Amino acid sequence: MTDVDVVVVGAGLSGLTAARNLQQRGLSVRVFEATGRVGGRVKSAQVAGAVVDLGGTFVGPGQERIIALADEVGVGRYPTHEAGDNLILWRKDLKRYRGLIPPIGAPNLLDLARVRASLERLSRKIPVGRPWDAPHAADLDAQTLGSWLAAKHASRGTHDLMAVVCKTSWGCEPSEISLLYVLHYVAQAGGLDPLLETRGGAVEQHFVEGSHEVAVRVADALGAGTVRLGSPVLRIDWAENEVTVHTDDGPTTARRVIVAVPPALRRRIRFVPDLPAAHRRLSQRWSPGILSKIYAVYDAPFWRASGLSGMSISDEGPIFITFDASPRDASRGVILGFIGGDYAREWDPVDDAERRIRALSSLADLFGKRALDPLGYVDQRWGEEDWLGGGPTAAPGPGTSASMHVQLTEPVGPIHWAGTETATRWAGHMDGAVAAGERAAREVAIAEAVR
Amino acid sequence: MTDVDVVVVGAGLSGLTAARNLQQRGLSVRVFEATGRVGGRVKSAQVAGAVVDLGGTFVGPGQERIIALADEVGVGRYPTHEAGDNLILWRKDLKRYRGLIPPIGAPNLLDLARVRASLERLSRKIPVGRPWDAPHAADLDAQTLGSWLAAKHASRGTHDLMAVVCKTSWGCEPSEISLLYVLHYVAQAGGLDPLLETRGGAVEQHFVEGSHEVAVRVADALGAGTVRLGSPVLRIDWAENEVTVHTDDGPTTARRVIVAVPPALRRRIRFVPDLPAAHRRLSQRWSPGILSKIYAVYDAPFWRASGLSGMSISDEGPIFITFDASPRDASRGVILGFIGGDYAREWDPVDDAERRIRALSSLADLFGKRALDPLGYVDQRWGEEDWLGGGPTAAPGPGTSASMHVQLTEPVGPIHWAGTETATRWAGHMDGAVAAGERAAREVAIAEAVR
Repeated sequence: MTDVDVVVVGAGLSGLTAARNLQQRGLSVRVFEATGRVGGRVKSAQVAGAVVDLGGTFVGPGQERIIALADEVGVGRYPTHEAGDNLILWRKDLKRYRGLIPPIGAPNLLDLARVRASLERLSRKIPVGRPWDAPHAADLDAQTLGSWLAAKHASRGTHDLMAVVCKTSWGCEPSEISLLYVLHYVAQAGGLDPLLETRGGAVEQHFVEGSHEVAVRVADALGAGTVRLGSPVLRIDWAENEVTVHTDDGPTTARRVIVAVPPALRRRIRFVPDLPAAHRRLSQRWSPGILSKIYAVYDAPFWRASGLSGMSISDEGPIFITFDASPRDASRGVILGFIGGDYAREWDPVDDAERRIRALSSLADLFGKRALDPLGYVDQRWGEEDWLGGGPTAAPGPGTSASMHVQLTEPVGPIHWAGTETATRWAGHMDGAVAAGERAAREVAIAEAVR
Repeated sequence: MTDVDVVVVGAGLSGLTAARNLQQRGLSVRVFEATGRVGGRVKSAQVAGAVVDLGGTFVGPGQERIIALADEVGVGRYPTHEAGDNLILWRKDLKRYRGLIPPIGAPNLLDLARVRASLERLSRKIPVGRPWDAPHAADLDAQTLGSWLAAKHASRGTHDLMAVVCKTSWGCEPSEISLLYVLHYVAQAGGLDPLLETRGGAVEQHFVEGSHEVAVRVADALGAGTVRLGSPVLRIDWAENEVTVHTDDGPTTARRVIVAVPPALRRRIRFVPDLPAAHRRLSQRWSPGILSKIYAVYDAPFWRASGLSGMSISDEGPIFITFDASPRDASRGVILGFIGGDYAREWDPVDDAERRIRALSSLADLFGKRALDPLGYVDQRWGEEDWLGGGPTAAPGPGTSASMHVQLTEPVGPIHWAGTETATRWAGHMDGAVAAGERAAREVAIAEAVR
């Protein structure tokens, strides 16, 4: 007899979903969470009367798992504001534009279209969930997105816009990330447009009460005592059909464990016996990018009156892309600004006061002086976050994707893996986190049934 | 009052040297080692009557710290055998040659010389110990050695020979490693020749009793009870001038701690409070390559009778480079073969029997059928090693070297860092390990003196 049937490590959306799913299947569960809160890379705050999402924010079409889960716990959605002109601050020049095509000149646009088409063509050859089976997988994995852009003779403008995509999607620079990983990521999201577009894409909607509320309600529904906060898992002893999970409060025995933490954190747990070498390698190499966020909250979305959407791109930094994240009733005006990749590495360690001033200056360059004086301001540095040390998802370098992808999900004895990185659709998104939690719970249920 | 003055984590050459140095300064020390042996990436075995070095092996001119330490504990050295012709198996063609210049045709040699000169010229601009201050540091760090070779239009032959250098030095492929890191590594070793040459270079000599014997004697001299084997450090609580180091046997208090483990393993320890984000990032990104080894032991160095040196290069794999590692009296013939980078990732998980057959086949392709039937055979898979998960040293990808190098050595409160990666001369070698241990001990002594 064990203390519980299954232990789940990590109370992010993935771990919480796994626990919920296991309970629904009649299994007893305990969830250990290292930090003092549930949600993982989903986190919210109240700023000057507005709810803002400090981590995972947007959902879009095809993201059925997170939408179903939010519906079950009664968290509603509303469309991302997109009426009005977008802005681009480019080569010191501020311009308005509509839709997805920024006014960067015909030669740049043609070059961007050429390179995008080439990337999409390549990505369609990658079998989703099995990047190692792609034609020339090792060759693609030996390149970075940056070296591929250089080999394609991408123009400077194309490079810089692809860097915006790279920072937004993976929190890193094109020179840091495996091309094969990028191609597979694009393939599993169904293409570049679904990843990037507002209408019809992954940023189409957000949650009325904030995405964190989904995690909170799922955690509450697990019942008192199920989720243990502030309980880092230090060690997992394992044998066939048995695990002992150690925290500061002592051991907990179970038949199986689902480890629902980012791959880079798996190795912070001491496994006895140790994980196979290939699994250890994955954890050493599958490190996260950094995509940090600021929110400025105003008494109204004042940019809308000037015909602006609030969406913008800038090549100046530290904020390189913004969105309008105002509440549905526009009772407040909220601008979300991203600081990612090199900008995050440079700006995350900067002190609060200077960072705030520089971030608001970035906004004022785009939306005018009024942006300098918000009612409220909040800032989330994912690179500084305890336990996570980055986000939104993995940004593995060259030589990692062809040879290590399989270890993302391959169980080791009674140890199963969840977390958004392990999903085969919408990995890196909240939807992938939920789908991965469900998949891991299913694996455990099958293993229990055949025992 | 604390249990000891200083705790050292890791009983590799670096940690042991630090402990020895601290004791000599009159401080009390305890060393915790996760594995069941001392030496870390230095390890030896007896095979059919010959001592072989399974990890760090060679020493050369300018490596004064390891040589002085070995002299102190009475471990002698002898020259690496190099009389006779080298072999190269290249494009299915086996050829003999003398010295460092393989017979790969004039166009290839000219191209190799051009690319080498260009690499050396770039490396001379990198300030040793401060790669981030190099001109265009971020640009250099955004490239891999592989993408730089492609941009230089290196010939296929040049690429393949640089890949041999890359596998031997860092256990990875050119496409995986930051160009800035490579340039700095070459700069701190004094150039490519010192890294690669037998006579006058880093493989000039090896130790009579094996390099591991140096570690064993240093550990013995620390006195009974100083080194605690099988004691992974799980957690370090720290404040100003105080640390509590937790192992399975309970807490040990000290004023300072020297963590002498590879950067990638630092984060396997739980620090309370956690390390600053920049230090955590280093640990997530500064992962090791893999360079595994096989030794075949024969009744005599039979290749010498055919005028062969035992040194060879092959483009077939899994063994891609060999050396004669016979004992000084030639009472046995010993061939050392390396399996590194992609070969190691492919071959380290293969079962013993198949791996042995494939390795001996590689040797027979070079040295004839007699190589198929050794008296003894031993095989060291560094990628499979508990706790280490790779070697010989770090192989960081792009985007890591300019921004993270400083955290290699920067102390955090009472926490100091050692390990060969932290050395400013001969990092990645045994000499760097010893020098880093001495430097960390000096830091601690100064901190204690000014307290």
